[in-house]
Amino acid sequence: MADLYASSRVLSIGVDAVVTGARSHAAVHSLDWRPPLDGHADTARNVAALLADPRVGHANRLAVEASLSVDPVVTRVLPAHEAIVGLGTGERRLLHAGPPIAWPEMCGPMRGALIGASLAEGWATTPEQAVRLLDGGAIALDPCHHHGAVGPMAGVIGPSMPVWVVGDPARRAKTFATLNEGLGQVLRFGAYGDVVLERLRWLSGELGPTLDAALTSLGGIALQPIMAQALTMGDELHNRNTAATGQFLKRIASAIALASSTPDVAARALSFIGGNDHFFLNLSMAAGKLRMDAASGFAHSTLVTAMARNGVDFGIRLSGSGDRWFTAPAAKIDGLYFPGFGPSDANPDLGDSAITETAGLGGFAMGAAPAIVGFVGGTPQDALRHSVSMRDITITADPIFTIPSLGFAGTAFGIDAVAVVDTGITPVINTGIAHRDAGVGQIGAGITHAPWECFRDAIAHLSQKSTTIAREATPPA
Amino acid sequence: MADLYASSRVLSIGVDAVVTGARSHAAVHSLDWRPPLDGHADTARNVAALLADPRVGHANRLAVEASLSVDPVVTRVLPAHEAIVGLGTGERRLLHAGPPIAWPEMCGPMRGALIGASLAEGWATTPEQAVRLLDGGAIALDPCHHHGAVGPMAGVIGPSMPVWVVGDPARRAKTFATLNEGLGQVLRFGAYGDVVLERLRWLSGELGPTLDAALTSLGGIALQPIMAQALTMGDELHNRNTAATGQFLKRIASAIALASSTPDVAARALSFIGGNDHFFLNLSMAAGKLRMDAASGFAHSTLVTAMARNGVDFGIRLSGSGDRWFTAPAAKIDGLYFPGFGPSDANPDLGDSAITETAGLGGFAMGAAPAIVGFVGGTPQDALRHSVSMRDITITADPIFTIPSLGFAGTAFGIDAVAVVDTGITPVINTGIAHRDAGVGQIGAGITHAPWECFRDAIAHLSQKSTTIAREATPPA
Repeated sequence: MADLYASSRVLSIGVDAVVTGARSHAAVHSLDWRPPLDGHADTARNVAALLADPRVGHANRLAVEASLSVDPVVTRVLPAHEAIVGLGTGERRLLHAGPPIAWPEMCGPMRGALIGASLAEGWATTPEQAVRLLDGGAIALDPCHHHGAVGPMAGVIGPSMPVWVVGDPARRAKTFATLNEGLGQVLRFGAYGDVVLERLRWLSGELGPTLDAALTSLGGIALQPIMAQALTMGDELHNRNTAATGQFLKRIASAIALASSTPDVAARALSFIGGNDHFFLNLSMAAGKLRMDAASGFAHSTLVTAMARNGVDFGIRLSGSGDRWFTAPAAKIDGLYFPGFGPSDANPDLGDSAITETAGLGGFAMGAAPAIVGFVGGTPQDALRHSVSMRDITITADPIFTIPSLGFAGTAFGIDAVAVVDTGITPVINTGIAHRDAGVGQIGAGITHAPWECFRDAIAHLSQKSTTIAREATPPA
Repeated sequence: MADLYASSRVLSIGVDAVVTGARSHAAVHSLDWRPPLDGHADTARNVAALLADPRVGHANRLAVEASLSVDPVVTRVLPAHEAIVGLGTGERRLLHAGPPIAWPEMCGPMRGALIGASLAEGWATTPEQAVRLLDGGAIALDPCHHHGAVGPMAGVIGPSMPVWVVGDPARRAKTFATLNEGLGQVLRFGAYGDVVLERLRWLSGELGPTLDAALTSLGGIALQPIMAQALTMGDELHNRNTAATGQFLKRIASAIALASSTPDVAARALSFIGGNDHFFLNLSMAAGKLRMDAASGFAHSTLVTAMARNGVDFGIRLSGSGDRWFTAPAAKIDGLYFPGFGPSDANPDLGDSAITETAGLGGFAMGAAPAIVGFVGGTPQDALRHSVSMRDITITADPIFTIPSLGFAGTAFGIDAVAVVDTGITPVINTGIAHRDAGVGQIGAGITHAPWECFRDAIAHLSQKSTTIAREATPPA
């Protein structure tokens, strides 16, 4: 027996325990193998059924085409209550990031942002009073996504806040996003001190109306050319919007000078935009949502139309399952921390900003942004690998958004939930890391992945629905 | 004999004629080999002498250190006659790009630009009158480089034109460059129609003073941080300044709003900067010249401190030979042409803008600008190769200017004329292509190389000078 082992090399696949005895006699190589789909027979059946169903591929192609034909243009900046249906009429209501979640279950940064928004709206005069209102259910809470809107991090939108209005001149649909507040003490990380509330007042009282007048005088600004160019300038349009912000400023600066009531107003607007390299992020998000909303509602389509996080749960929506969310616990983020902070301070993945990845940007376009690795960690080669690996779970290459260092190949576009489940490759997301306590702010940035389980559940639902529809469609014997 | 050949493979090195007879019998592989240094024994001796001379390496290190310690800040925009010594006092004088050249020998675009500048200065009221003045020697002509200045393409500077003033707060030296006029009908391509003259009046009467007031209120703008960041955003700071222009606009926009006499003045300034992606080029050039001027005058140094073209001759200067020019015929440009134009329309290489390559930017930093290949031709891989190959002829890697896709390696900095002569690798230059007739404008862009011969002559001069100095320094026996 010992002799036989001596001349042998053992390859152990999967469960290592069975070769324990062999280790003392022979060279054992362990391969970390698992049965496909984690051994879930039901899931395997769902994948097989959807892959075999020609309606799925057809619907996915239609959904992707609808999405890629969208031409997002930012036309206005309006108070949210004027722009967003269901805000500012009747009951008090605030919007938040991610899939639905009740006030008691929310994470620290989101609770802080809701307190801040309640103060900014004048519904409460102290944080304690705001908490009592929220505890008592006196303020209705809805996901931004349920109102055509998106917000980074906590993603809180109140009726008085100015929002970008993004639409396609050829379509009726509109999407909305807040104005980016910059870094430091900001509402989206749950801060609600005086400096935060004062900035919110300036955003709604001065910057918003100035931007609106400037955009109106220009007849709007097309976002896709700016975004396509920014990808050739080192942005991936989620965690890095330096170039896009500059290109946007080039287009709007002179209109701001003309639309401002005084030179001081113009100077404050120009200085705020010029001093915040994340300024374009919220426009990138609204453009991404407009793209993905156009792909929504195609029966049988397994295309992912939204990925969003509320800091507790990660949720996705599929085209074929409409407004329904499929959720799993939000993941931790693997990243770089600012001095003095570490993983134990971090809130799990948070914000609607993963709409950029859903639209083929952010982590999917990391190869376009080699310099971002100084912010989120890794090497430029890792960034390229992320972009390339997303091709395995997407339906097509974007015809407009390209990555120069991949020979101007289009970014991987159109996440197919079936491919995610089948390959085990989950969407990569570049993101900021929020402190888990309200108001501390950003403590780092990094990379995370969408949890596999919500894709598994989503295709289980679609598979069942498709079978039901097929059965209903079969004439009785 | 035939049998011997049949089993043989012949490698032909250099002169192919000697193996003509072998071709019918055996597989002949030709290697395009030439004797080192084109067989010039004198040049070989000069290279050997300079390589062996410890004073050369020492001087080169000092020159490079002096250059890399420069911190260029743009502080003012002034009329050239206020900023540049020797302009606007006494006789009529205009500056032009490249090494010295007399009016009758000048190329079309440069003649056109000098005519336009004579009209703009009010020295002539018709082009014919301007030509008569220039024919008669009534207008003195000097290279920009002789006055601390640089200008793209024809590079013509008249006393009334506003110029950027770039200096290092810790040093006395200043450099100067014109404001970039944008594309289309512009003086630097030799156009002198009404639209050109009107724009020059606006530049000197309105934009220049506005920028000066804005810069003065800011206490200047440091250029190196903008340039370093632009390299991570797809610029190479010669033919592509899209990101740098945006980053510069971010810093100056609010100051322009406050410094402008009316909102219209501010809007015109902001719109002009935002609409001209080459706006930063002239700042990049002035910063490059400030860098290289600091490296000038180190005895024995073979560092190249200037490369400049007047459209007829290409000239270089070495640190160790001070203000002396070494010239060779300007090369043709291998590039992409705008529709309707081709190589037969092209003027040879023109302009002071090769100061960017001299300072480690432009062609040397092409790897940072993969998207530029759509403008100058080739592939992103070619762009990377150019950046890498320049390491063979440079003294160091730039500690501040880096190329993300090369793992943030510093750009190749400090051209050593000895290395150029020894390796036969000549500096690569990204450049615009001017029509050879005055006033037609830019007809394409592409890549060219500095001619080897001027480096050969430059090191011959230095070698001789070093020997002379050494002989003089030797005490008599």
